[in-house]
Amino acid sequence: MASKSVSKLKLRAFALGGIHEIGKNLYVLEFGEDIIVVDCGVAFPEDDQLGIDLVIPDFSYLVKNRDRVKGVILTHGHEDHIGAVPYFMRELNVPLYGTTLTLGLSELKLKEHGLLNTVKRHCIQPGQSFKLGKHFEIEFISVTHSIAGAVALAIKTPAGVIVHTGDFKIDHTPIQGEKMDLQRFAELGKAGVLLFMCDSTNVELKGYTISERQVAESFENIFNKTQNNRIIVATFSSNIPRIQQIVNTAKRHGRRVAFVGRSMLNVVKVASELGYLNIPDKVLINIGDIKNYVDGQLVTITTGSQGEAMSALTRMSTNDHKQVEIKHGDRVIISASSIPGNEKSITRLINDLFKKGADVIYESLAEIHVSGHAKQEEIKLMHALLAPKYFMPIHGEYKHLKHHCELAAGMGMPRENVFLTNLGEVLEIGNEGAKINGTVTNGQVFVDGLGIGDVGNIVIRDRKILSEDGIIIVALSVEVETGQIISGPDIISRGFVYVRESDSLMEEMRAAARKALEKCERRNIVEYSYIKTEIRDAVKDFVWQKTKRNPMILPVIMEV
Amino acid sequence: MASKSVSKLKLRAFALGGIHEIGKNLYVLEFGEDIIVVDCGVAFPEDDQLGIDLVIPDFSYLVKNRDRVKGVILTHGHEDHIGAVPYFMRELNVPLYGTTLTLGLSELKLKEHGLLNTVKRHCIQPGQSFKLGKHFEIEFISVTHSIAGAVALAIKTPAGVIVHTGDFKIDHTPIQGEKMDLQRFAELGKAGVLLFMCDSTNVELKGYTISERQVAESFENIFNKTQNNRIIVATFSSNIPRIQQIVNTAKRHGRRVAFVGRSMLNVVKVASELGYLNIPDKVLINIGDIKNYVDGQLVTITTGSQGEAMSALTRMSTNDHKQVEIKHGDRVIISASSIPGNEKSITRLINDLFKKGADVIYESLAEIHVSGHAKQEEIKLMHALLAPKYFMPIHGEYKHLKHHCELAAGMGMPRENVFLTNLGEVLEIGNEGAKINGTVTNGQVFVDGLGIGDVGNIVIRDRKILSEDGIIIVALSVEVETGQIISGPDIISRGFVYVRESDSLMEEMRAAARKALEKCERRNIVEYSYIKTEIRDAVKDFVWQKTKRNPMILPVIMEV
Repeated sequence: MASKSVSKLKLRAFALGGIHEIGKNLYVLEFGEDIIVVDCGVAFPEDDQLGIDLVIPDFSYLVKNRDRVKGVILTHGHEDHIGAVPYFMRELNVPLYGTTLTLGLSELKLKEHGLLNTVKRHCIQPGQSFKLGKHFEIEFISVTHSIAGAVALAIKTPAGVIVHTGDFKIDHTPIQGEKMDLQRFAELGKAGVLLFMCDSTNVELKGYTISERQVAESFENIFNKTQNNRIIVATFSSNIPRIQQIVNTAKRHGRRVAFVGRSMLNVVKVASELGYLNIPDKVLINIGDIKNYVDGQLVTITTGSQGEAMSALTRMSTNDHKQVEIKHGDRVIISASSIPGNEKSITRLINDLFKKGADVIYESLAEIHVSGHAKQEEIKLMHALLAPKYFMPIHGEYKHLKHHCELAAGMGMPRENVFLTNLGEVLEIGNEGAKINGTVTNGQVFVDGLGIGDVGNIVIRDRKILSEDGIIIVALSVEVETGQIISGPDIISRGFVYVRESDSLMEEMRAAARKALEKCERRNIVEYSYIKTEIRDAVKDFVWQKTKRNPMILPVIMEV
Repeated sequence: MASKSVSKLKLRAFALGGIHEIGKNLYVLEFGEDIIVVDCGVAFPEDDQLGIDLVIPDFSYLVKNRDRVKGVILTHGHEDHIGAVPYFMRELNVPLYGTTLTLGLSELKLKEHGLLNTVKRHCIQPGQSFKLGKHFEIEFISVTHSIAGAVALAIKTPAGVIVHTGDFKIDHTPIQGEKMDLQRFAELGKAGVLLFMCDSTNVELKGYTISERQVAESFENIFNKTQNNRIIVATFSSNIPRIQQIVNTAKRHGRRVAFVGRSMLNVVKVASELGYLNIPDKVLINIGDIKNYVDGQLVTITTGSQGEAMSALTRMSTNDHKQVEIKHGDRVIISASSIPGNEKSITRLINDLFKKGADVIYESLAEIHVSGHAKQEEIKLMHALLAPKYFMPIHGEYKHLKHHCELAAGMGMPRENVFLTNLGEVLEIGNEGAKINGTVTNGQVFVDGLGIGDVGNIVIRDRKILSEDGIIIVALSVEVETGQIISGPDIISRGFVYVRESDSLMEEMRAAARKALEKCERRNIVEYSYIKTEIRDAVKDFVWQKTKRNPMILPVIMEV
């Protein structure tokens, strides 16, 4: 009767990341006692998440159910899919599944966190399947994306098959690795797919994303036009197909290639060792040796395509890099698109490069970058091949998920079978059908320095106030026995305005604080918290009236 | 012999704003004793200019030469051309010249600053000329742009004619106002133009900017498809041609129009009074009265197209607006493009609107916005009509100015006649030719609350540190006579991490401070500045080791 009890069990699917945001991805699938996790990414902080280094999903639901979690499956090696693996593994040490490159890149992270020897890893090739727990069987299916070793997942459960695309585009002429296994998707669709979870990143864009191979032509043209100058290309270190194309073009033109930037060097090393990147010995040189070659013989591949302040290319553009300085005539190619939020820093970088006399080629000027995500026609093709019963869009902001639902409905899916869920909201599929059933704990956890989760909203709010108008400290010493003020009030400010000790503004602030103290004295108020409130209000009001600014006012009372 | 001495005088042209940045525009022209100023705009702060409200040009060169400044000429009424007028007029009260609408919008600003009665204003129509000082004669020439009343300037000087385009596109079918006076530009070119100063904003874009009139078709389609729901359109309040088109479409569809948002109401009032905006009485309703109409009868035109936190549309999307709340089925049209840096806040706004059930139409989905700036072919046409001797690109980031120089050279201008200048760098044109000759004082002045220029780089740097890791205050009281510490060290933190008084981190910080104090005592150090440095270093080191964070450490010593 085991099968009967299984048939009463429900499939539950929900996101702890990757819904209503571009950034961290983490999806949870449950059947009976078994829980599996798909992807485990990080996001970079929003502008108003001041001082935060990284944002990771809230794992607390999984921690609470730690005995049920059977493993983490990674679809590919991008930061927003693997970046939180070490943070996850610190709390829940479960086996990790991925393709060779995906695991190779994850291992770099585990190593940094000293977890390499404690986490069990299983390398799975596209086309292979493996079991997890009692109820799940996962098959890796090759997809094309802006990194090698990307897969979609077909997940067999007693309730039916789930297809999760990971990130993908349909590139019929990929640079390396296998093609997208469209036949397998068709076969799965023919046999019946219960739930389709599909990448929504480019769903607003009409048509097809062009092939990575097209970029080669643009590079060829630029290399042809550049005879006696250096070529410096910035791209994402994880875009190994792109790096391979640049290396191939360099080789054809008799140029040597040097790599710069910490993540670039790390990824190139791992990808070369694992056979994902093929750089002939004669082509590769050390960045320290570029001085031994004439300019027309050199290509430098670097990080910094987003204008990140500490990246190699930014430092080259501001004379702050040890080995490379931009000089007149350098051909700089920024082979990447702007990640939303980075537009201004990229523009600043381009300006700085031009000012140093470089010839800068960037996306709005030439076809030197293509997206790694499927546009509308590719997404429709996947829906057509898989013909799923239920659909849940993933990977995107709310507007993308919304448009993806419209697209599915436009192709004829009944609206009641399409689920636009919120973070943590559980899609439950049983014999009686599918519905949203409750929400599990979810949210964002901030990583700041070594701290994980110790910076919360109050701290962020304080940082915001401090960042806008600074802080004014009102310090005084009080004799405990008598309650007399024996020193102060002294005023110290930081980040407020430039004031000298002698400025009348300082004296007036002191006067405002003194007045508040006198008021307390007259009323015989001795409670410190009350006195502090009075001082804060009085100085705050005075400063606002006088300057229309709202610094943080912090009274400090020393007991003597 | 007067003419001979004049012929020895040189024409000097330079920018104090509008070069290497999109934002504030301010150009200075000098001949002999005369100085004239073209435009006087503000910029909005960059992300790293924390807490700043506005950025204005450094006027100090003009203040130093105040007797020579004959007037300020405004090309049109956008913030980046008129926003700094009140700040300028506080320091140098000189006459203001502009078209009717430009002056009307400037007067709103003068009024806010209580300067309306002190500043002399001269209304000039396109086609009219006026003299300024001994040497300048300025002619207004009609141009098309995303605001009515925009002009280019032909400035006659004894050295020759300067043409300054202001902002422009070549729109042969403008919605209102005159067409671009191409014949006059051709005539000027035929007679000989000494120096051409030309808008560079869209110089990276191929082809022509499409006509404002095209937007009407998109609005017509959307209105046709929207029968029983409200229509809410967000656009720039200064885009009066756009507002007129929306009003016209509303009228055709029997809908009433209500306006929302402070700047929208201000601009609509001024533009209506001056005849730039024509809203039939039967169409206009008060926002408070929308409840008296059914949804299909309403159009609301609002501010907030950039997702600004305090704008009307953002507040509607978060249930924070008094009169309008977004409801299911509302058709929201964002009829504007993203200003660089605003991408994320606009996306957040769109997500929030969708979440409330609105149907949101934005730029990537429909042709509901066109640029107000000329693209390559229009810019080339201007160069061809004017055939200037010298050329200086204006209005743009460095990359735009650089491309504009390439464009001019590509049309055959000798490279030595093309001048890519820096802010404050003086282009000097005399009988012997043109050259860069020195740099005048230039820079950015921050407006923060009521303060102008009292927030400098040190304050901004402090705000940055505070915003990233907060502040830790180490307070102690010292008895003056004995040098004994009689209270503290106490630790208070804000914006650092969430710590309770009882946390071991607090105790450890106190211990680190105490150790530094003991060290000073052992060495008989009594100088406060030295003691403070020791405390700061000790606590800083401890905090970094323990948390990998770098808060500001502020020792406060109270003398008792």
